[in-house]
Amino acid sequence: MSHLVRFSISLEEELLQKFDLQVKERKYKNRSEAIRDLIREELVETEWANNEKVAGTITLVYSHHKRGLVQKLTTLQHDYYDMITSTQHIHMDHDNCLEVIIVQGEASALKQLANELKAVKGVKYGNLAMATYGQGLL
Amino acid sequence: MSHLVRFSISLEEELLQKFDLQVKERKYKNRSEAIRDLIREELVETEWANNEKVAGTITLVYSHHKRGLVQKLTTLQHDYYDMITSTQHIHMDHDNCLEVIIVQGEASALKQLANELKAVKGVKYGNLAMATYGQGLL
Amino acid sequence: MSHLVRFSISLEEELLQKFDLQVKERKYKNRSEAIRDLIREELVETEWANNEKVAGTITLVYSHHKRGLVQKLTTLQHDYYDMITSTQHIHMDHDNCLEVIIVQGEASALKQLANELKAVKGVKYGNLAMATYGQGLL
Amino acid sequence: MSHLVRFSISLEEELLQKFDLQVKERKYKNRSEAIRDLIREELVETEWANNEKVAGTITLVYSHHKRGLVQKLTTLQHDYYDMITSTQHIHMDHDNCLEVIIVQGEASALKQLANELKAVKGVKYGNLAMATYGQGLL
Repeated sequence: MSHLVRFSISLEEELLQKFDLQVKERKYKNRSEAIRDLIREELVETEWANNEKVAGTITLVYSHHKRGLVQKLTTLQHDYYDMITSTQHIHMDHDNCLEVIIVQGEASALKQLANELKAVKGVKYGNLAMATYGQGLL
Repeated sequence: MSHLVRFSISLEEELLQKFDLQVKERKYKNRSEAIRDLIREELVETEWANNEKVAGTITLVYSHHKRGLVQKLTTLQHDYYDMITSTQHIHMDHDNCLEVIIVQGEASALKQLANELKAVKGVKYGNLAMATYGQGLL
Repeated sequence: MSHLVRFSISLEEELLQKFDLQVKERKYKNRSEAIRDLIREELVETEWANNEKVAGTITLVYSHHKRGLVQKLTTLQHDYYDMITSTQHIHMDHDNCLEVIIVQGEASALKQLANELKAVKGVKYGNLAMATYGQGLL
Repeated sequence: MSHLVRFSISLEEELLQKFDLQVKERKYKNRSEAIRDLIREELVETEWANNEKVAGTITLVYSHHKRGLVQKLTTLQHDYYDMITSTQHIHMDHDNCLEVIIVQGEASALKQLANELKAVKGVKYGNLAMATYGQGLL
């Protein structure tokens, strides 16, 4: 557990009022918590921009009826098994699946893997969401 | 299964060369598949912008040592149980968890839920990634 | 000019160290200034999400050799003259122009205008960047 | 002027219907033009991700009443004069200015410049929008 440090900042009154409104609407407990979140988001973006070792989630939507598709996705995931932590699969309707793959590795390698998964014939939609190991963000 | 329609488009030669290179690098099988993906991405963004019923994934990073945090996240997820399809939990290290929550509902409601989860004290990072039901995108 | 308010927040020591490093790299004068920027960015995103009256900049890249293109862009800008504040035009090379259009109005109307400008035959690239009137953000 | 190449692609009927609707709403002249735009956007994103030489626009909002601010922005722009093509200045109201700076250079250098401009005390909002030289995108 990290030690808490207290320090003061100054803000224009009008800006603070607008911020307080947003803090309330998003149900933050206090300003510190909201500001911490803004700081962490910026730091996670920097981790990705600097190609550090990060975590992320790849979301895919596809039809499992497509012949050979599930097989190809599975093969591709095994080729990159050292980056893939786990996979979750949801049946959204008769045809459509949503699959979420948790990945860890260098940012650029995760992007390449996400691009290859999206490129598989039959994958209708895919994206890669940034996350983080969370070390030093506590 | 949707019927395939064939039609022709025209592209500047130089632009096509650049595109073909990208198609190859991302390991698309052919141009049609790559163009389909670009079109679908644009349509999914429109679904979200128009506040349609969509699917998405919320990614959270937090320390499970934080007192009361897991309880609070669970309570919040139960308050919104009708939007939450499933939750996957990963132990990243001694302290940090990565949780991926698959959500379905109106885009604006999913954004509100994601904001509230991020605001819980102890959640270090959170984001909401767009996905889709995939209907009409086949 | 808005009155400055001083208040204190608490941050985990490790997180603060990472943040201080970023404050330094980006050449902020102090933490307050960096945190103010994070808050304002979040508020500007909210203005756009809520379809408030905002400012923005549309950037277009096109070849002025394309027959009829300049005429069409000019006509379109006149149709929307009440949203357009000014236009700046750069000759990037023998063929290519970069045009930046400053726009003001409801976020959704600005998006529609940007989409129509991008759709003009011969426009190679276009985007709409968020800005703000800045009221209450001082 | 680049030579036009014609080739055919195949698309699922339902997906094509959705796409045609979007093509119409955004007032594209035809499908080719809309698909060209999607391809170019993807290529411009790749140029930036690969840190190629690109063009861009930095948008700043600030109050000109802030003592020393205009001087500091001018000094900073002169330090980076080789990246800055031109600057456009708009008086939005009694206090607020919107300034758009057209920049050219390596993507990472443009990001650094944008970060430094945003960090100047009194700048309320700033962002960097991607653009391109447009070569090979015709």
